[in-house]
Amino acid sequence: MSTLTCGIDIGGTKIAGAVVDATGEVLAEARVESPATDAQAVETAVASLVTRLAGDHSFGAVGVGAAGYVAADRSTVLFAPNIAWRNEPLGDELARLTGLRVVVENDANAAAWGEFRHGAGREVDDQLMITVGTGVGGGVVSGGRLLRGAYGVAAEVGHLCVVPQGLPCGCGNLGCLESYGSGTALVRNARRNPSPELLARAGGDPAAITGPLITRAAFDGDAFAIEQLAEIGRWLGHGIASLVAVLDPGLVVIGGGVVEAGDLLLDPIREAFDRELTGRGYRPRAEIVPALLGNRAGMIGAADLARE
Amino acid sequence: MSTLTCGIDIGGTKIAGAVVDATGEVLAEARVESPATDAQAVETAVASLVTRLAGDHSFGAVGVGAAGYVAADRSTVLFAPNIAWRNEPLGDELARLTGLRVVVENDANAAAWGEFRHGAGREVDDQLMITVGTGVGGGVVSGGRLLRGAYGVAAEVGHLCVVPQGLPCGCGNLGCLESYGSGTALVRNARRNPSPELLARAGGDPAAITGPLITRAAFDGDAFAIEQLAEIGRWLGHGIASLVAVLDPGLVVIGGGVVEAGDLLLDPIREAFDRELTGRGYRPRAEIVPALLGNRAGMIGAADLARE
Amino acid sequence: MSTLTCGIDIGGTKIAGAVVDATGEVLAEARVESPATDAQAVETAVASLVTRLAGDHSFGAVGVGAAGYVAADRSTVLFAPNIAWRNEPLGDELARLTGLRVVVENDANAAAWGEFRHGAGREVDDQLMITVGTGVGGGVVSGGRLLRGAYGVAAEVGHLCVVPQGLPCGCGNLGCLESYGSGTALVRNARRNPSPELLARAGGDPAAITGPLITRAAFDGDAFAIEQLAEIGRWLGHGIASLVAVLDPGLVVIGGGVVEAGDLLLDPIREAFDRELTGRGYRPRAEIVPALLGNRAGMIGAADLARE
Amino acid sequence: MSTLTCGIDIGGTKIAGAVVDATGEVLAEARVESPATDAQAVETAVASLVTRLAGDHSFGAVGVGAAGYVAADRSTVLFAPNIAWRNEPLGDELARLTGLRVVVENDANAAAWGEFRHGAGREVDDQLMITVGTGVGGGVVSGGRLLRGAYGVAAEVGHLCVVPQGLPCGCGNLGCLESYGSGTALVRNARRNPSPELLARAGGDPAAITGPLITRAAFDGDAFAIEQLAEIGRWLGHGIASLVAVLDPGLVVIGGGVVEAGDLLLDPIREAFDRELTGRGYRPRAEIVPALLGNRAGMIGAADLARE
Repeated sequence: MSTLTCGIDIGGTKIAGAVVDATGEVLAEARVESPATDAQAVETAVASLVTRLAGDHSFGAVGVGAAGYVAADRSTVLFAPNIAWRNEPLGDELARLTGLRVVVENDANAAAWGEFRHGAGREVDDQLMITVGTGVGGGVVSGGRLLRGAYGVAAEVGHLCVVPQGLPCGCGNLGCLESYGSGTALVRNARRNPSPELLARAGGDPAAITGPLITRAAFDGDAFAIEQLAEIGRWLGHGIASLVAVLDPGLVVIGGGVVEAGDLLLDPIREAFDRELTGRGYRPRAEIVPALLGNRAGMIGAADLARE
Repeated sequence: MSTLTCGIDIGGTKIAGAVVDATGEVLAEARVESPATDAQAVETAVASLVTRLAGDHSFGAVGVGAAGYVAADRSTVLFAPNIAWRNEPLGDELARLTGLRVVVENDANAAAWGEFRHGAGREVDDQLMITVGTGVGGGVVSGGRLLRGAYGVAAEVGHLCVVPQGLPCGCGNLGCLESYGSGTALVRNARRNPSPELLARAGGDPAAITGPLITRAAFDGDAFAIEQLAEIGRWLGHGIASLVAVLDPGLVVIGGGVVEAGDLLLDPIREAFDRELTGRGYRPRAEIVPALLGNRAGMIGAADLARE
Repeated sequence: MSTLTCGIDIGGTKIAGAVVDATGEVLAEARVESPATDAQAVETAVASLVTRLAGDHSFGAVGVGAAGYVAADRSTVLFAPNIAWRNEPLGDELARLTGLRVVVENDANAAAWGEFRHGAGREVDDQLMITVGTGVGGGVVSGGRLLRGAYGVAAEVGHLCVVPQGLPCGCGNLGCLESYGSGTALVRNARRNPSPELLARAGGDPAAITGPLITRAAFDGDAFAIEQLAEIGRWLGHGIASLVAVLDPGLVVIGGGVVEAGDLLLDPIREAFDRELTGRGYRPRAEIVPALLGNRAGMIGAADLARE
Repeated sequence: MSTLTCGIDIGGTKIAGAVVDATGEVLAEARVESPATDAQAVETAVASLVTRLAGDHSFGAVGVGAAGYVAADRSTVLFAPNIAWRNEPLGDELARLTGLRVVVENDANAAAWGEFRHGAGREVDDQLMITVGTGVGGGVVSGGRLLRGAYGVAAEVGHLCVVPQGLPCGCGNLGCLESYGSGTALVRNARRNPSPELLARAGGDPAAITGPLITRAAFDGDAFAIEQLAEIGRWLGHGIASLVAVLDPGLVVIGGGVVEAGDLLLDPIREAFDRELTGRGYRPRAEIVPALLGNRAGMIGAADLARE
């Protein structure tokens, strides 16, 4: 019997798939454009990607990571923010199309599981992962198990309220961590009052300021850019202090695109966390480290979840 | 072999013990004054209470709930706020004194486990319990297991930061949920600007305003007292919305002394929670219910934890 | 010599003018559509409105209230939010076109002056007026004199920051009072989570919920609508407590469209103010009353300012 | 007739007096210990200080600056925080004891007037002064006149609420600017988590950390101390942005003991102010400068107010 499984990560613009072995090694990889918001077309595309990967490697199960709320049956997507899935039996549908066993998981949970099994969290039993990209997501592993919640929608750490009556969030609430600590917040803040230097890098157009541009400027020593990263880092550290009070992980892993800024993001996170963790001095303190698997974490985690 | 176990709850002023059967029924119960802050005297008192209970019933194990950070070995108290325990091998010491197997757990965790096994949470697998007394504590059950964290100090839900740079908390931080949603907050708020009616109930002395006095006034229809309970309820509901975003429990159980106010506390909690839960409308919504076991929850839970 | 003057109020959609006597009585009144954003066309329209009013009554001076920053020369508009005036010599231009003496004032200041001279503030020397409409504006009279500031841009009370890192404001800042206490905030809040009753009044369409609709529902006893008005009232009372700490007026006058809600708005303002005014109990307390002159306050005030 | 007047500053521990000429020059100066909280003893001490100063110079009037709410009659102290004056006719009493005309003013107002007439604000007509010491106080000059308010208690700028539900203030409110931007806040913050370097300067005792110690460390380049000053500076700049939106002064003067830190305090104030002033870019911007008269500002201002 094969020890290989297939992991799929359904993103907003791309669908990525990989064949992964029991050690987390990626043996083959492929990706296709995502047919965007057409729910059925996405399923067809995933199925054909699976079939393509199955051409060279034999595997018995498929794990799928998808943005949205995934029910406890690990098949049904209750709600997806970007695709018109409402109570969609995604796993059953893909099983029908591929003839394989399929397990569906929230994409941030899948990435957290990937880091836990084969990345930054290999050595611990309790891991909090925070993904800092356009939004702020996360995944929690507790006692070696993925914390899925009663309805499969746990670990929405970006929607911790950090400022009562604060900035509006896409979720409809005010003051969510995501509104202060995401890549979107980074860019919004920088565009509001850009320094002349940063504006010059953007060709004089505030709208051309992007996250990677800020990060590059920061690596070049631009004080304004460094402060922009520090600002979102402080908010993330503040939120992590609250999350650690609740979850008490042995390790906090920071992933997502913005973590490319490295210690320019991580040090402000660590400083705020150290300053604000309740009971500091009377308890061991979880380390905060960058993720190791990059954007393959979701596929690797999904593949591993299918193995169980 | 006996199916009975003993549960101990070490409180600030009393130590309570019970013999509990596998259904959670309390067969015998006893309590002694706590020798306050003398660490060794507390251990001696617990041991003698266990011996006393063992006179009539035979049991093979003891579960102990204690305020403080309890290490993953379920024996060592890393730090206790009220007793001079620092890295105290409480479980080993009690085992030596009683000759029985001893399991130590944080008291709020023990109470949460009690409600989960034999109280309000019997029907669910994922339960968040919030204890609203002098402080705000809690316990989390996820997938049928107690969420203890890497260092045994999880579920410090009272130290979620809800107001950046807000009211000082006993933990040294600013803006903790405990500073806005506890019984202490209830009394502090009411004393600041008491209504003439409430002040009259307190014999004209603001310092004589207590939580039970506010609750009695509220039951009598006093609008000011009702608003005071609603105010802390709104903060609790606000905090629970954040906690549920992270934990996704199937049920939220509210315990502690302040829950005696019943729906005068619970309805404002529910309203704020309903208004602020992220993704509301796209996910099942956890019910918020009062605890069932009162102040026996800790003993019953501790006894059950010793059974495992 | 005539004791009559002319008062002009340049609004976003209408330009209103009146001939006013020394007692504040309006002898004649006229209005025209505003040519919107065309700066010169607005000046021509004002001049022709003045000429029309001058047909029946003789007056020697014109007072003009306009949204924007008006320089200390009381002629130059430094910046207007809705019209393309930048350092526009509005007063000089109108004087040239009409052959009359012209005094320009910020529109909210003009309205505050009108209430002070001939409306709710007749009896005091120190008055704070807050105008609650689409935005939150204001005007301050101190020691019988309009507080204009060094650059004629004082009393921007809607841009007091009440929530650090809070809701974005049209001015580019975060957390301005205007974002919490304006008619716009009232409607935004109500649309976010409308009660079924209010939604039914709006024909099922959240976008059809307006300020007047909320006010009517509140007058009919709709609890949700009453709470919406109370919410913005509490924020206004909160802001007024800060403003009174700085300005110590003898009277606070609330004007603008939202004050049509009467005590449903004013009582929550008063309660929050009473609860939060610094030094309460050790100082006389300014009363909070509705404006008396309605939308004529600006014209009447502008006319009076031209008389001085 | 003499152009000299006498200015008195009644502080918490000292009473200082000076004979001042019309140009603000101090011709003679004396001080006595304050008999603390005994109201009548303070009056006797002031009177004897005046008599002593009158020995060498002839003056016709006395100006007195005192902490507290001073009524519009400029004689009656409605309430004083540190002395048992309640509706005390301080001016009349001192006039009786000294035989001279006496004018009483709030001490922060007197200091603001001193800077306006003979210090940093000589060139402007509209000045906001903020005094940063144990607390945060202030005084406002508008159109060349002291803004006293209807009840003589204006310019309590330290009690602007900057954090809803924030840190408790001595005034009984939550979240006042004083709780974030005062010397007391500076010391409280530094003591909470002192750096090893700062702690070493304080001989290892957090309680020995004082404002001057922090300032000295900052001048020596201690990064932690610099950040402590920057933190209160940012809050002050944040508060000043709100105050300038309301008052539109031509100049902001910063006085009080903490301003000894110079640009280490002033630059963070300026940066936060520049970032947060509403309408920035469309209006002239008030400069922020240090006070010039030090702790003589109150005496000089009081003397000048007696001259009018």
